[in-house]
This record gives sequence, structure tokens and C-alpha cells, in this order.
Amino acid sequence: MRATILHAPGDVRVEETDDPKITAPTDAIIRLSATCVCGSDLWPYRGVDSVEQPMPMGHEYVGIVEEVGDEVTSVKPGQYVLGSFVASCGTCEICRAGYPSSCVNRVFMAQVGTQSERALIPHADGTLVPLPGTPDADLIPDLLAASDVLGTGWFGAVAAEAGPGKTVAVVGDGAVGLLAVLAAKQLGAERIIAMSRHEPRQKLAREFGATDIVTERGDDGVAKIKELTGGLGAHSVVEAVGTQESMQQALRSTRPGGHMGFVGVNHDVALSGEELFFSQVHVVGGPAPVRNFLPRLIDLIWQRKINPGKVFDLTLPLEEAAEAYRAMDERRAVKAMLTF
Amino acid sequence: MRATILHAPGDVRVEETDDPKITAPTDAIIRLSATCVCGSDLWPYRGVDSVEQPMPMGHEYVGIVEEVGDEVTSVKPGQYVLGSFVASCGTCEICRAGYPSSCVNRVFMAQVGTQSERALIPHADGTLVPLPGTPDADLIPDLLAASDVLGTGWFGAVAAEAGPGKTVAVVGDGAVGLLAVLAAKQLGAERIIAMSRHEPRQKLAREFGATDIVTERGDDGVAKIKELTGGLGAHSVVEAVGTQESMQQALRSTRPGGHMGFVGVNHDVALSGEELFFSQVHVVGGPAPVRNFLPRLIDLIWQRKINPGKVFDLTLPLEEAAEAYRAMDERRAVKAMLTF
Repeated sequence: MRATILHAPGDVRVEETDDPKITAPTDAIIRLSATCVCGSDLWPYRGVDSVEQPMPMGHEYVGIVEEVGDEVTSVKPGQYVLGSFVASCGTCEICRAGYPSSCVNRVFMAQVGTQSERALIPHADGTLVPLPGTPDADLIPDLLAASDVLGTGWFGAVAAEAGPGKTVAVVGDGAVGLLAVLAAKQLGAERIIAMSRHEPRQKLAREFGATDIVTERGDDGVAKIKELTGGLGAHSVVEAVGTQESMQQALRSTRPGGHMGFVGVNHDVALSGEELFFSQVHVVGGPAPVRNFLPRLIDLIWQRKINPGKVFDLTLPLEEAAEAYRAMDERRAVKAMLTF
Repeated sequence: MRATILHAPGDVRVEETDDPKITAPTDAIIRLSATCVCGSDLWPYRGVDSVEQPMPMGHEYVGIVEEVGDEVTSVKPGQYVLGSFVASCGTCEICRAGYPSSCVNRVFMAQVGTQSERALIPHADGTLVPLPGTPDADLIPDLLAASDVLGTGWFGAVAAEAGPGKTVAVVGDGAVGLLAVLAAKQLGAERIIAMSRHEPRQKLAREFGATDIVTERGDDGVAKIKELTGGLGAHSVVEAVGTQESMQQALRSTRPGGHMGFVGVNHDVALSGEELFFSQVHVVGGPAPVRNFLPRLIDLIWQRKINPGKVFDLTLPLEEAAEAYRAMDERRAVKAMLTF
């Protein structure tokens, strides 16, 4: 099959590889309807995460089941499915407590690769959610977004306790940040402040439900959020970048007693214990437990109540994956979809 | 009046000072029934917090109201009262949201001083809680404990979401840690692991409700907690020290999706964003919103259902405050009460 392989920072190639094979009785193999490039794929692409050897890329997927292992009972060949970017068993104590992305048996799909014609899905019963039927072609981008960026933005908003009566601020205007805006809106937030200095992203943020745009960053951004919230800070802040500056900006934009959900994969971030202490902000983050949200997200998409696929502003055939990476790296695209 | 003044690290003296005076219409003045030395008083005593000029010491108090400002309506002269170590207005948005220790008008009582015969209490209506009557003498230590160490341990347990079905681990065997054990027990925790290597403190922890004692610290302590919890870590961890090692130990002892409440005043602590991210632990801490808990704590004490005053293992007259500090500094005492 054709698959996207990163050979070294900046060197992405689409190559012929072996088709995946069922090796565990809990595996499934899907044929992808579409796949895409994630902001987090840029960490190794940019060399921030090391690339020791050629690595298969991608962790987002929607597709049709082709084959299942002997113990798989919840999906069958021919069914359309999607799943989280973390495969999870669904049965361990951590999964049952609602944290499948920290499942003791988890497999990060980034280690398997899904920017390819087919993909192996471990723990199929715990991971895959069947769609209600064959999706209309125009729903594919929305469904694909649920696999990570929508589910991750949703978790950010849930972790930040976005809801009725709350002012929510979102740090980061990538696909996850924009979809955290959409999530905050769906969760009933009263006021949603998107922090963005890019006009097309501001526009999408407004379309997704942002009531205010703040273009300032860092301390100036914090000051602006305080100005908009009676000097107190937002009740709920979603961090969707993962840098020292963005984490501090998010923490300092949250009022005492408020909640910060951080979903940007942290890189070289050190948080001051003193600052965290005196902030009195509830903080939780990590790989989003997307699996929890999928039934609700699929339902919202299927009923055409949300349109998260709008974050895809570039669509290319799989063969042009390298250009998709370049466009995202150069911020010419928010998020690139790859088709077959 | 007689008051305890820190002149320089290690140099605590009891001196004659002016009686406090009502300056704001929301002030009250109380005559103390007893006062005490807190673990956090040791930070300046040890020179970890700088001592720029002679500073009044102490922030815990129970006593009788002597005088109130014109606008005070909730307490009156002659009433026995206690309050939190943070004076709070009770009316700002942060207070109303349940975070009086982050009140926008807060006054840390440590800046006022309560290791003295009388004390000025700002924001009396928001801060003081009247007792049901004149307390029996033997209840004074219990009531005094509610002002900070009990309320802070309680917040640690609440922040860690201690409750039925939960395994709670407590890092730190000072008065706050020990009272976090008591709180976890009251909140219905199933299993309570006290981390302590000091036999008398272990004994008190067991008396307060600890089901297990772990003597190991650091990585060994984490390994022991994991061993006791099926490899996962505790559901709820209370951190009651405030050092780099204790914060890491607490975070690493918490299972993914679990909750860590940290109430040790952090000093020179840097938390790795990456570690916090992948831990997927809910973290919240800070100066405890003790005021929230006081009605319940006073009721439990008044009904003699809890005996937090047991943390006082040294009682001295106010004049011997210097010895009280020395005994706590040298860990000869868990907590010292000062009487008149």
C-alpha cells in the first residue's frame, strides 16, 4: 500500500509499504476514506522531536473495516468506523474511569501510522466506534476531524469546565484551538474569547462561536483578557499550543478558582510551583480521552449540527503529503486533508 | 500588649507593642484564647523567606470579640469567634465563587500577626465565624486548628477529591498532612496512605484514619504507592510540604485521571509541563479557602466528632514563643500552641 514516511526532519515521502496484517486477535484493519496532517506531526517534521529512523506518520482516521481479529466483536468488515488517535482497551481501570488516552494498554496511533491507504487498529473493540451508516462524502472531513482535533479541542473545553455562564478564553488558533471554540459554544459557554492574530482564523473562530477576538499575546494578551473580565481573568481557559509562553499565558489568563485545560503537547515547558500555587487554578491536560466523546461528536456531525471539517483549508491527494506538511509548517494551511 | 516579632531569621522575641486599633469600619478586634506556630512561620524563621524588617508573626486564631467597626453586623463584642488565616470580604466575585483565599480584597493574617494577646481582623463580616457559645477549655486547641492546619488539610483532601471508594495518599506528615488524613477519613475515603517515617506522627496518622503507612520517599515512595494500588497510583493525593521533591512525589503517586491537591506553600518548585501533560492528573492548590469549611469544621469539633487539636504536641505560654519556634524547627514538635 501507499504510506507516508518521515525519513528525517523536513523529509516526508509517500512510499510503497507492506499492507498491515492482523497479529493480535483484538486488531482490526481499516481502509481509510481520508486522513490528514496534525499540528503534532510537525514536531518531528521540524526536528523538535527526534527522528531516529524512518517513521510512519499520521494518527487520524475514518474508514471502512476490512478485516478483524478473532476476538473483535463490536465492529465487522464493511462497517464505517472512526476512532481516537490513541487506541485503548476499554476494559482497564483507567479506561473505565474515563481516561482511555491513559489506558494501561494504550497504543499511540502515531506509532502505527494512518497517513496511508490502510491502517492497523489495535484494541479494536475499545477503540473503534461504528458510524450509523455509510457517510455522505461531504461528512468525511467532519468525521475525520473527530478523530483528534475536534475531540482534543472538546476535551480542552471540558477540562476547562466551559459551560453556561462561563467566559472561556482559548489560547492557540490552530485546528485544536478553533475546535475548542466550537466545543465551548456547544457546551453552552456565555462568552468565548479566541486569541488569534490571523484574519482567516479569526473568521473561522467567529463562525465556530467566538464572541471576542484578542490579538495580543503573552503578558499583553493576559492584560487584555483581564480587561475583558473585570480584572479577574476568564473562568475557563483552553491552552492549545504547548509552549512555555502559551502555557503561562493560559495560566495567567485564568481567574482564581477557574479551570485551565491544556491540550497542546508540552515541549520544554517548566511551570513555577509558586505561580501555580498562588494562581489557585485547576489544571488538567494531556492526550485527550477522545474515545469518550466520539458517540456525541459523531451524532452532532451526523445530524449536521456542527461542521468541524471547516478546519481543513487544504485538500491534497495522499501522494502530495510532502506539500501538505510544507503548507502547515509555513502556516499557509490550518490543516491539510489527504485523500485517495 | 504582648506580641511575637521576628527580627531576623532565628530571632523571635515576645515584646510589648501597641494594642490594635479599628481603622476601617469593617474591622474587628479580638482577644485571643490561644494562638500557635505554623509550619509556614518557619519559612521566614529559617530565612527561606526574607525578613526585611521586624515582622509580627502568626496567622491562626480563636478568641473573643472585643470591638467592631461601624459596618460589622455578623459578630459583636463578647462573642467567641474564629476565622481563616486569610481575611476575605465575602462579597467579591471570587469569594462568591467559593475561593475566599483568593479574594480580591484579601489580607493574609500573617501580615497582621496573631501570635499576640489581641489581633485586628480585617473584613470581619466575611472572615469571622461565631462559635455556638463559650467553648469548653479543652476544645480550644481543636478550634484553633480549624483556623489553618485543619482547614488547609481539609482543602487538600477536597481538592484531591477524596471520597468513598477512593485511595488517598498524603505526602507530608506535618500538622497539615496529618489533618489531611483526618479530612480524607471524614470525607469517606476507603483507603488512606500516610507517607511518614516518624513513629509518633505515624501513630497520630493511624489515629486520624490512615489505613497504611509508607516510609519511603521520592521515587521509592512513588514505587511503594504504585505497589499498593495495582500499579496505577492513588486516586487522590494531597501534597503538604511544598518542595520540588514532595511535589514530584505527589504528582507521580497519582494515577492518570486522578486528582492532586497541593497545599504546601511552594518554594523553588518547577514542574515539567511534559510530565504534567502526560500524567493527566488534575492539579489544584494554593492558600486554602478555609472560610468555606469553617461552619462544618466547627460543627464537627463542637459535637466532638473530630479532635484535630491532637496535632499540638507542645503547649507553652506566649512568652516562650522562641522555644516553640525552636522545637518546631528542630522537629521536636509537630505543632506548638501558645497560651496566655
